[in-house]
Amino acid sequence: MRSALPKALHPLAGKPMINHLLAACEQVFERIVVVVGPEMPALEKAVAPHATVVQAERLGTGHAARQAAPLLRDFSGDVAVLYADNPLISVPTIRRLIGKRDEAGLALLAMRPADPGRYGRVVLSPAGNVDRIVEWADASEVERAIGLCNAGVVCARDADLFRWLDAINDKNAKGEYYLTDIVGLAAAEGKRVVAEEAAEAELAGANSRAELALLEAGTQARLRAAAMAGGATMTAPETVFLSWDTQLGEDVTIGPNVVFGPGVMVENSVEIRAFSHLEGCTVRRGAIIGPFARLRPGTEVGRAAHVGNFVELKAAMLGEGVKANHLSYLGDVKVGAGANIGAGTITCNYDGVSKHRTEIGTGAFVGSNTALVAPVRVGDRALVAAGSVITEDVPEDALAIARGRQANKPDRGFKGKQAADKAIAMKEMS
Amino acid sequence: MRSALPKALHPLAGKPMINHLLAACEQVFERIVVVVGPEMPALEKAVAPHATVVQAERLGTGHAARQAAPLLRDFSGDVAVLYADNPLISVPTIRRLIGKRDEAGLALLAMRPADPGRYGRVVLSPAGNVDRIVEWADASEVERAIGLCNAGVVCARDADLFRWLDAINDKNAKGEYYLTDIVGLAAAEGKRVVAEEAAEAELAGANSRAELALLEAGTQARLRAAAMAGGATMTAPETVFLSWDTQLGEDVTIGPNVVFGPGVMVENSVEIRAFSHLEGCTVRRGAIIGPFARLRPGTEVGRAAHVGNFVELKAAMLGEGVKANHLSYLGDVKVGAGANIGAGTITCNYDGVSKHRTEIGTGAFVGSNTALVAPVRVGDRALVAAGSVITEDVPEDALAIARGRQANKPDRGFKGKQAADKAIAMKEMS
Amino acid sequence: MRSALPKALHPLAGKPMINHLLAACEQVFERIVVVVGPEMPALEKAVAPHATVVQAERLGTGHAARQAAPLLRDFSGDVAVLYADNPLISVPTIRRLIGKRDEAGLALLAMRPADPGRYGRVVLSPAGNVDRIVEWADASEVERAIGLCNAGVVCARDADLFRWLDAINDKNAKGEYYLTDIVGLAAAEGKRVVAEEAAEAELAGANSRAELALLEAGTQARLRAAAMAGGATMTAPETVFLSWDTQLGEDVTIGPNVVFGPGVMVENSVEIRAFSHLEGCTVRRGAIIGPFARLRPGTEVGRAAHVGNFVELKAAMLGEGVKANHLSYLGDVKVGAGANIGAGTITCNYDGVSKHRTEIGTGAFVGSNTALVAPVRVGDRALVAAGSVITEDVPEDALAIARGRQANKPDRGFKGKQAADKAIAMKEMS
Repeated sequence: MRSALPKALHPLAGKPMINHLLAACEQVFERIVVVVGPEMPALEKAVAPHATVVQAERLGTGHAARQAAPLLRDFSGDVAVLYADNPLISVPTIRRLIGKRDEAGLALLAMRPADPGRYGRVVLSPAGNVDRIVEWADASEVERAIGLCNAGVVCARDADLFRWLDAINDKNAKGEYYLTDIVGLAAAEGKRVVAEEAAEAELAGANSRAELALLEAGTQARLRAAAMAGGATMTAPETVFLSWDTQLGEDVTIGPNVVFGPGVMVENSVEIRAFSHLEGCTVRRGAIIGPFARLRPGTEVGRAAHVGNFVELKAAMLGEGVKANHLSYLGDVKVGAGANIGAGTITCNYDGVSKHRTEIGTGAFVGSNTALVAPVRVGDRALVAAGSVITEDVPEDALAIARGRQANKPDRGFKGKQAADKAIAMKEMS
Repeated sequence: MRSALPKALHPLAGKPMINHLLAACEQVFERIVVVVGPEMPALEKAVAPHATVVQAERLGTGHAARQAAPLLRDFSGDVAVLYADNPLISVPTIRRLIGKRDEAGLALLAMRPADPGRYGRVVLSPAGNVDRIVEWADASEVERAIGLCNAGVVCARDADLFRWLDAINDKNAKGEYYLTDIVGLAAAEGKRVVAEEAAEAELAGANSRAELALLEAGTQARLRAAAMAGGATMTAPETVFLSWDTQLGEDVTIGPNVVFGPGVMVENSVEIRAFSHLEGCTVRRGAIIGPFARLRPGTEVGRAAHVGNFVELKAAMLGEGVKANHLSYLGDVKVGAGANIGAGTITCNYDGVSKHRTEIGTGAFVGSNTALVAPVRVGDRALVAAGSVITEDVPEDALAIARGRQANKPDRGFKGKQAADKAIAMKEMS
Repeated sequence: MRSALPKALHPLAGKPMINHLLAACEQVFERIVVVVGPEMPALEKAVAPHATVVQAERLGTGHAARQAAPLLRDFSGDVAVLYADNPLISVPTIRRLIGKRDEAGLALLAMRPADPGRYGRVVLSPAGNVDRIVEWADASEVERAIGLCNAGVVCARDADLFRWLDAINDKNAKGEYYLTDIVGLAAAEGKRVVAEEAAEAELAGANSRAELALLEAGTQARLRAAAMAGGATMTAPETVFLSWDTQLGEDVTIGPNVVFGPGVMVENSVEIRAFSHLEGCTVRRGAIIGPFARLRPGTEVGRAAHVGNFVELKAAMLGEGVKANHLSYLGDVKVGAGANIGAGTITCNYDGVSKHRTEIGTGAFVGSNTALVAPVRVGDRALVAAGSVITEDVPEDALAIARGRQANKPDRGFKGKQAADKAIAMKEMS
């Protein structure tokens, strides 16, 4: 991957790959043990509260699985081995694998990839059981023609699995302990081995950034389909990027090129126009967002409120019917219902040391190109003249003005002026 | 669809599905009657001036078609039945259907879908006529293997069609009157029934938001191909979203991620850069738009004018060669040829009650971060100093300044200051 | 193409098609001669320093190739003929063609298109040599069933090639000299003719804007794959548009919808968020860009600096750790390490005649909605109060304020006011 980040932590739809897998596993398994490499504190944190065990040396998949044994000594039941880079595996597939195990000593997942390439092939007996797994390198031409491939995921009773894991060895070209070798051990004990087929898309892994992008595409396709099935209309679903936890109501309309970060909840009948970017926010029923709107964490946009182009909201609570339609930055702010925020309004919420809050009252009107120096409060129904710098509270129903007086100077305009004159004019104060 | 909006009104490329179908039908048919459900005033309005008739009970496609009979009593000729959710059907296809009717008593459209699924199958006679339509549920394995599927669109002489429609019954599992049953009635009368094949893409319907998105994709693909054939270059056509009425000249260059709403006309040799959003506007020859430009209705951008990033134009008339390149809101404004609009210029066009107009003269120079409080006029060749709030008209050739005087206070800067001092400094006026 | 621009100059990934081809050829050939049409100075300039020769009349591909002969009189060796509208041909393919020539008198490139359409077919002898090329119009049904098609690219020894070119004639339906006719001449001389197969994607041409868009898509796919192989993560590679010369380091993360113009260099561990647009700039290690950021030529963003939404940088040098996160225009500016640029900061760098520079010192704090009228310098650790218009230099460690005094006027707010009052209030200065 050419990355400093452990592969399992590369995100899909805003959530690490491993957490996608864990979310599926949590619905099926009583206990989960995660085998990690040495010195991966970020990974251990990401998988908490699940137990982790460190595989100190990278001696193969069988060796890795074996590390989990001590943490499962007191456990009795089916144990499955899954991989962090199969994050798209579904709950029904895992359940089918376990169901299959009930019929046999060992169950494994198999797939029929469009391009079987160098996957190990699953050789079935006439009865339909797994006869053996043959690695591509060792496979005959006949075996290579088999479409059924080993996905590597296995399930067995605890005692069986760990006994087989203890028995596999590293007597092979790479000197690794292969999990796959338990198939032969099970067969040698006369146990039945069975394969459960799953869709290739669920078993896709990622060994490169390009494959990671394909996993992301698969994740997005699922999320978009679910959103549309739930009643959201997307002009161009392939240009909408959802987060794993995006919540969209019915009759939500989403234009092209909209990006959702984590933690977004959108109520019914909201319109999100093109080129909008939302994270960690709630959008109430009937609101209109964008185009070119940026909603950052801690923001709530009230019912039927409008947030327009080149507007950034950060920790902004906008009441019902508020309009903030043009080129504004509203941060650490509460805006009362029905207030109108003029174009170019900026809340000066940071003094270089601390953040301060701005409050704008119900029905207030903030004129365009206004700076509100926090902490400051504009009262209900107050009017702030355009171009003002507001440093003191504005009482309810009051008009506040804070701007320079205009002076017009004849014949100092643009006609026939030299550069030097221009520069002087630019510097004049009044 | 899980939607409060009637399906026929869901838009494709900015126009309701039903209006796409009507646009095709208007090129072929003398008279059009639209059968609508009860209480769909928005739909009736959308299809005007075409006559509508209400199907009070949803008793099937045959029942729906029968409702149109009273409005066609005085009509003599071919009558076809089409569906609002087949909006992509083309004029040539409709003409071919009618042409086919000339050879027979009843003509219907058929298709060969990639996945025939549960469509009714068209069983042909050895002579190539339609023997019968068999619904999927009733079809034998042999019949299900037929690739030719019924698209539901039919055409017959008026008297034939309405006689058959009167004769069909609801003696079936669903208790509905099926339009398809007229095939059997026509055959029973000894009339020849023929099938005209059309591309699946033309007959795609939408029974879910996901299928609606596919229809939109098909519509966009057609519009993009037409625009490119007309001489527009698109870096990435799949990221350009056109409206049904978008007009693009020759040698128009469009970057990635550009969205056109309705009513846009772009003359030759215009460059529209990435992340631009245009609606209801005219862009004159040689202009450069974007990236990140927003053109709203009522806007005209003059020849060779430049509109740059984070600039919003609304009802803005920009003369030839005007430059408005950075972070501005120009609304209800007329800007004379050659004027330069500085970064951060905002027209304060709304006082909370009414909108007011701003005029900026030919060759004027509006300095950056300026607020123009409308109604106001900046004269030809006038110069407005940066950071001004302009509330009075500026005469031609004059210089206008309206900003505070600068005070520098030593040792009050950022070094070693405490938070309390910071907050005080932020509030100082001079 | 319906274009005023010569086809060879239409850009792919920001570079003219012809220059893509030349870049490949320069790695293989000692000398390159470009045959151009009459009056194409822009094309001649684009291919410099390679020699050009004008084909005054458009008499066919053979005639065009013949024009190069005078410029290659003193050259001895393999000569290949390639086409400007095959810009995706790879260096290995060209090398394979030349290698094949070593075994024969004439080597040509062939391909097996998914849809062979009207391409000329390559008829092979039993021994696998090229027997002849048959044009589609002249081909029998059996010949049309041949999948191997002529790509038009040929390679022969200099003396052979030019002798054959002199010998071809225009005795055909179109009255043109066809390069392909040299195949017959070579065969007539008893020379062996061989075909080297190449992927259709490498030999794609562009005879329409739609085909040009496909070439662009092919170019982008290559660039994205290379970037990901180099360690860049792209959430949605299909929405990232690279330039031919984009340089991306390892662990660079790129969100959806990012556009790179020419001349961008991004160091390791940079995050470029959605909707960003970069041209001619350098981004140092650990910086965060976007969403909605615009970086224009001459810009350098320092290590771990942040450039946020609706921010435009033009010829801006930002030091380490600088933050410019909201709605700003910074042009012709140098910003010292650790400085904080408030929301809505605008450098007024243009006075209508000249551009002027702004300097902001190390650790300075520029309050929000501030205009900096260049030329101007804000000293190290200086503090500029929000809403100021700075026209004079601010000393180190000083506080600068330049804004109007606030006046609050009771009962002049928004409650129950008439439109006329509103308009008056809007115009008041203090």
